[in-house]
Amino acid sequence: MKGFGYFSSEMNCEIITVGDEILIGQIVDTNSAWMGEQLSKIGVRVIRISSVQDKQEAIVEALHQAFERADLLLMTGGLGPTKDDITKHTLAAFFNTQLIRNKEVEARLEAWFTKRGRVLKEVNRMQADLPESCTVLPNFMGTASGMWFNHHGKILVSMPGVPYEMKHLMETQVIPKLLEERSLPAQFHHTIMTAGIVESALAEAIADIENRLPDFIKLAYLPKPGLVRLRLSAYGADEKSLKVATLSFAGEIKTRIGVKAYGVNEASLTESIGIKLLEKQQKLSLAESCTGGLVSHLITSIPGSSAWYEGGVVSYSNDLKMNILGVPHELIALNGAVSEPVVNAMAKGITQLTGTDWGIALSGVAGPSGGSEEKPVGTVWIGLFGPNFQFSECVNFGDQRGLVIERAAWHALFRLWEAINR
Amino acid sequence: MKGFGYFSSEMNCEIITVGDEILIGQIVDTNSAWMGEQLSKIGVRVIRISSVQDKQEAIVEALHQAFERADLLLMTGGLGPTKDDITKHTLAAFFNTQLIRNKEVEARLEAWFTKRGRVLKEVNRMQADLPESCTVLPNFMGTASGMWFNHHGKILVSMPGVPYEMKHLMETQVIPKLLEERSLPAQFHHTIMTAGIVESALAEAIADIENRLPDFIKLAYLPKPGLVRLRLSAYGADEKSLKVATLSFAGEIKTRIGVKAYGVNEASLTESIGIKLLEKQQKLSLAESCTGGLVSHLITSIPGSSAWYEGGVVSYSNDLKMNILGVPHELIALNGAVSEPVVNAMAKGITQLTGTDWGIALSGVAGPSGGSEEKPVGTVWIGLFGPNFQFSECVNFGDQRGLVIERAAWHALFRLWEAINR
Repeated sequence: MKGFGYFSSEMNCEIITVGDEILIGQIVDTNSAWMGEQLSKIGVRVIRISSVQDKQEAIVEALHQAFERADLLLMTGGLGPTKDDITKHTLAAFFNTQLIRNKEVEARLEAWFTKRGRVLKEVNRMQADLPESCTVLPNFMGTASGMWFNHHGKILVSMPGVPYEMKHLMETQVIPKLLEERSLPAQFHHTIMTAGIVESALAEAIADIENRLPDFIKLAYLPKPGLVRLRLSAYGADEKSLKVATLSFAGEIKTRIGVKAYGVNEASLTESIGIKLLEKQQKLSLAESCTGGLVSHLITSIPGSSAWYEGGVVSYSNDLKMNILGVPHELIALNGAVSEPVVNAMAKGITQLTGTDWGIALSGVAGPSGGSEEKPVGTVWIGLFGPNFQFSECVNFGDQRGLVIERAAWHALFRLWEAINR
Repeated sequence: MKGFGYFSSEMNCEIITVGDEILIGQIVDTNSAWMGEQLSKIGVRVIRISSVQDKQEAIVEALHQAFERADLLLMTGGLGPTKDDITKHTLAAFFNTQLIRNKEVEARLEAWFTKRGRVLKEVNRMQADLPESCTVLPNFMGTASGMWFNHHGKILVSMPGVPYEMKHLMETQVIPKLLEERSLPAQFHHTIMTAGIVESALAEAIADIENRLPDFIKLAYLPKPGLVRLRLSAYGADEKSLKVATLSFAGEIKTRIGVKAYGVNEASLTESIGIKLLEKQQKLSLAESCTGGLVSHLITSIPGSSAWYEGGVVSYSNDLKMNILGVPHELIALNGAVSEPVVNAMAKGITQLTGTDWGIALSGVAGPSGGSEEKPVGTVWIGLFGPNFQFSECVNFGDQRGLVIERAAWHALFRLWEAINR
């Protein structure tokens, strides 16, 4: 509930998604969550999200009811060229206006199809027919235009449902236009990214700072797999003073949290690791067993990671641990593959094999089988090898295979982050 | 729109999720999509999904409006022990009933807390206070009970929002009770899993079979990353004859699609590969460059994959391609790392290094940088090496890094599936 109700000019918003795909579970609606987060940042409160059928009467009923409750309606979906896409016609009827051919949009459609070597059929050309009373929001990522309607002091915006088209329209046109037209209060946001600490421990660690926050600065805890985001949002008359106050508190929080505050404003832990390694001119390699390649995948999802990540070995079998990483057979025979000596040997082995500065090794029991009384499902050994540095740790990550793998991967990355920041 | 409107006793359903977390975008609502899919399988049509605030008036308004449109209301969320969880009290007020302590639920809560070594506080004990007029649906996965209300010939079911608790209640209690009480028609479902073919090509390939389907069998195309599911749903009077007819058409479709139909009923491609390799007593290894470990992660997400997957190398740098996989330096110097000779050498190299029967190699330009006129971003070479078998292929998977990696990974797995089914 944090972050709401703190200034008088607050705007209520409803999101309406059109299309049966969401209702029958063919796709998950990720658009609404993204929009909700962006809107809450500019002080707009989403009070309802509705998914409705591709039927004129269902859409019209939803519009009437939403306009009773909210000042702003954001719609997505139903703007394609086929006949089951009825949003545009429904809106024209709802606002009692007619469709007229928009020459600019038509020219852009022609260029779009020509560039792709496709013929602009009449059904596609009709995407340039838009309601006369709306402001057209040009869509440079696709063929369906956004539409902005002013209606008795309220606003309705219709956008395509394709996520990157919707996001592009929101970021470049809808949000700037809302800020401009509605004289929303000045605001400043700053997000501290943390890892290696759970939400409750984080809240305890900074409780006294949180209690001292002035009314115009709100703090939200936003957990994601492997991390917790701390979002500071300030609202008031003057952006400059909001910024000064927010960054001062953010500095205090970061000092308190220490290395666990690994970055700001949506930086990922892997990105921060990459930046640090580039600074230090150091490289990383991996020896993964139970995480089966996930750590490597998380790293290589970052563009440019080849500059600091050399690669690694997924030594799923004991043979590979011995033959490629050079783990002595006796070490495995004596301690088992899930053990401190083995992850240490794996980490050292991959570092030497690849000639990198740092090596991470993981070996564990992901489950559902393979557990024992001594090493139950969820047991994971993590080993880290680096310049004058060796670290190992055993953690239990629970009994669900997918979660064990995911948590172990993020935890190992966090330990590396700590190590390269000593 | 397929799959609806085909029998008279059809039931309309609305889903209402309660809680600000969804509205402000803190979590994505995945529950509704899952429920929508399960319900459409039993012939219940979801006509609206609404996410509302944790406020009594918002919930009550949503209930009134939903009861006007639908026969069945499924609610999730707002059943926790803290004071912002108001669903239970709101429902008691809405149905004009009172909360009474349920002894069975109380005993289960006591056992639950004792087992976990925790003290049952009064705030937790109050989770056993439930509306007098409802049928309690015991929740064996958590502390919040489900509640089933009959209301003027319509039904409302309230469930916790934690996905695995909701799914457990739906599968074990809500769906069986709906089938029993509503005498829904007999039904039979069969899903054919396909890979390596896009939706439109699939539709074209089986158009004549689809046209011959009797009215009581509906076909739905359900795409997911890397695959398309073909779901056949039959509704009628007698389950046995539905089954015979459906499986006969399914057989015809599978014969037409051939090896691209890799399994049935939600089997994953990696699972099917594993079963086939186990049958053949063969093992697999991987040499990944541009996919950076994702193929390995997809494989090791399958429980028991260690029986047929030996492991692999993420040879992100050229040095690792040469030093571990034994790719000759001249091959890279002459052709570049993204080339047919190099993936062939990588595939052969990993197979020999690990002593496995099969090896997959991938090398490509994931982007955003690294592309050239000859090898633009998205270019990926895939190499496959196996018993008396060698295959290589170059595909462009587009210009978005994340999608290039994901599509390349699934495509390589599909090529392996084809190869082991020759």
